[in-house]
Amino acid sequence: MTTHPQPAPFTTDDYAARLAHATKDAVRAGMDGAIVGPGPDLEWLTGYRPTAITERLTVLILLPGDVPTLVVPVLERPDAEGAVGAPALRIVDWADGSDPYQTAAAQLPASGRFAISDATWSVHLLGLRHALPETTYHALGSNLPMLRAVKDTGELDRLAMAAAAADETYTMIVHTRFAGRRESEVAAHLARLLRKHGHEQVDFTVVGSGPNGANPHHEAGDRVIEPGDAVVLDFGGLMHGYGSDTTRTVSVGEPPSEVREVHAIVRAAQQAAFEAVRPGVPCAEIDRAARTVIAEAGYADRFIHRTGHGIGVTTHEPPYIVEGEDQPLVPGMCFSIEPGIYLPQRFGVRIEDIVTVTETGGRRLNNTDRALLLVE
Amino acid sequence: MTTHPQPAPFTTDDYAARLAHATKDAVRAGMDGAIVGPGPDLEWLTGYRPTAITERLTVLILLPGDVPTLVVPVLERPDAEGAVGAPALRIVDWADGSDPYQTAAAQLPASGRFAISDATWSVHLLGLRHALPETTYHALGSNLPMLRAVKDTGELDRLAMAAAAADETYTMIVHTRFAGRRESEVAAHLARLLRKHGHEQVDFTVVGSGPNGANPHHEAGDRVIEPGDAVVLDFGGLMHGYGSDTTRTVSVGEPPSEVREVHAIVRAAQQAAFEAVRPGVPCAEIDRAARTVIAEAGYADRFIHRTGHGIGVTTHEPPYIVEGEDQPLVPGMCFSIEPGIYLPQRFGVRIEDIVTVTETGGRRLNNTDRALLLVE
Repeated sequence: MTTHPQPAPFTTDDYAARLAHATKDAVRAGMDGAIVGPGPDLEWLTGYRPTAITERLTVLILLPGDVPTLVVPVLERPDAEGAVGAPALRIVDWADGSDPYQTAAAQLPASGRFAISDATWSVHLLGLRHALPETTYHALGSNLPMLRAVKDTGELDRLAMAAAAADETYTMIVHTRFAGRRESEVAAHLARLLRKHGHEQVDFTVVGSGPNGANPHHEAGDRVIEPGDAVVLDFGGLMHGYGSDTTRTVSVGEPPSEVREVHAIVRAAQQAAFEAVRPGVPCAEIDRAARTVIAEAGYADRFIHRTGHGIGVTTHEPPYIVEGEDQPLVPGMCFSIEPGIYLPQRFGVRIEDIVTVTETGGRRLNNTDRALLLVE
Repeated sequence: MTTHPQPAPFTTDDYAARLAHATKDAVRAGMDGAIVGPGPDLEWLTGYRPTAITERLTVLILLPGDVPTLVVPVLERPDAEGAVGAPALRIVDWADGSDPYQTAAAQLPASGRFAISDATWSVHLLGLRHALPETTYHALGSNLPMLRAVKDTGELDRLAMAAAAADETYTMIVHTRFAGRRESEVAAHLARLLRKHGHEQVDFTVVGSGPNGANPHHEAGDRVIEPGDAVVLDFGGLMHGYGSDTTRTVSVGEPPSEVREVHAIVRAAQQAAFEAVRPGVPCAEIDRAARTVIAEAGYADRFIHRTGHGIGVTTHEPPYIVEGEDQPLVPGMCFSIEPGIYLPQRFGVRIEDIVTVTETGGRRLNNTDRALLLVE
């Protein structure tokens, strides 16, 4: 096992700043506070990730002018107290046999407008609503969409390290033999390489060869890769808690001319979207930049997904690069740019980089060759 | 890698029967139907597990007298169509840029009482409520608590196989050296053994040595295990999609007499609870059987959690063996019996088996020695 450089650890102060920022964001969104269940928001705000997400209530309550309060099952109190962000929190526990929603309600006003984190289980929302029937609940993701979107330096470092590891993975995989291997074997190889280069978690290893490449969410199957196949490779996971996500499409030997043509269109679309990135530009405009290139080439109805998604402590988060998203880009935002063209029963092409917004434009965190590489 | 016997695969008919059973259960609970998001309920009902659980809406809609409908993102339609239960479903898709809640609402009546699965993300419940403001939503877990509780033969086979693998793991670990190893090393060893014996997923490997054993949710840390330590070993995961979960407490060499004493009390409590198992007995009575033994020994306030939880496609589900749970036991139910005594700063003891309810009593799926084993 090679050793990798470690990022500077986040501190209690980092978490305290995020907690204050989230409370302010909630108020700005017209809320009386926020309620955050287990999941990426809680982890980002406190450094706390319960061992398992279960029916046992854990919620963070943010109220302006009050210390953030974390309600936890008494059994999990020692774990919660061990989180780096814990010194910035008041921890309140409840025991099996008592009503956890009453414990949470006692930390909240009798009524109000509250943002609740998207991934909080419905059973908890229903329990809180029963305990506080006058309170209204609103999706945190749509009311505070940019809560985690602008990354700080420590986060950008981690995202760049994760992207570099994904780039190393691509560089190594293209020197291996594709023809004759099953997609699932190449996928397993990608996963090993991601881990070898420092990922603690592999979230997806798409290997879409030939006709399977035309399904953008095909993972990897039993199909044996053949000479002449276009192969979509889309892989990523978490490293130091932050996501990687990159896609390249390779050709096994000399491709049919149509593959070259489609690949060139997707590459131009990806480049156009990248060049559109700068502070103040709405997300939708990045989507349009890619879509216009593909539409003008006659493939409008073969680009069947949005252009990208944010990335941070998850591999899928705001800002979404999609028609209708008017959010202007802000320096420090990180997201994927991943246009694709999918020809059912034949092949698909997708090219994806993680991009961060700088003061003046965009910077790619993935830097491997975007040309159509020929593999063996 | 040794090969393991494979259980007979579930069929489309198995899933069709579960779908019909769930719809009937919902009606019996006074609902107009059920809404099931990604998670264990969806997997149990359809065999479908989305690659990732995200902000993209996937929901199964169950209405009496109608074909069950699965609403999925268009990108994930091919995956959904590949599920074993898919032939029993109508699949409806939505594309990025459209409103998925309108697509779901179009499959539902304009108003009604609906059960919604506990693990469905709040953002989806809020989206559905917005699309169908006249509808009321109710926690599936508390309204149809026994939906997955009674296991069929195929499920019992899998649970027994998972328990046997956990038993093999325990049998092997007690022959290894404990003194001088870190908890985390023993935990990693437990995880390897679970995988070696066929687990595809390891969910927890608690190694609570000495004072760490007094925190029932301590996982495993840097502490070096010492002679004289009591060590709580609580481990499990998924095998063929079904859970294992067993606990034994061992002693590193000769234990202090108090450890023997406490261990004997916990063992007697576990035995008393097991002997109380038979059809018709309320869950709470199993909890009381264990608690009474511990209380009579003077440790009432040191048994700080419920006696057990159901197990199936998750390692934590109804029926809960806890005060206040009046649900009578039914043949085919499977749950843990895991009393413990925790002496802060000193040590803890817990003993846990998975038990299934038979026509006449209970049957343990874990069968390793429950005596206090002395390890090296």
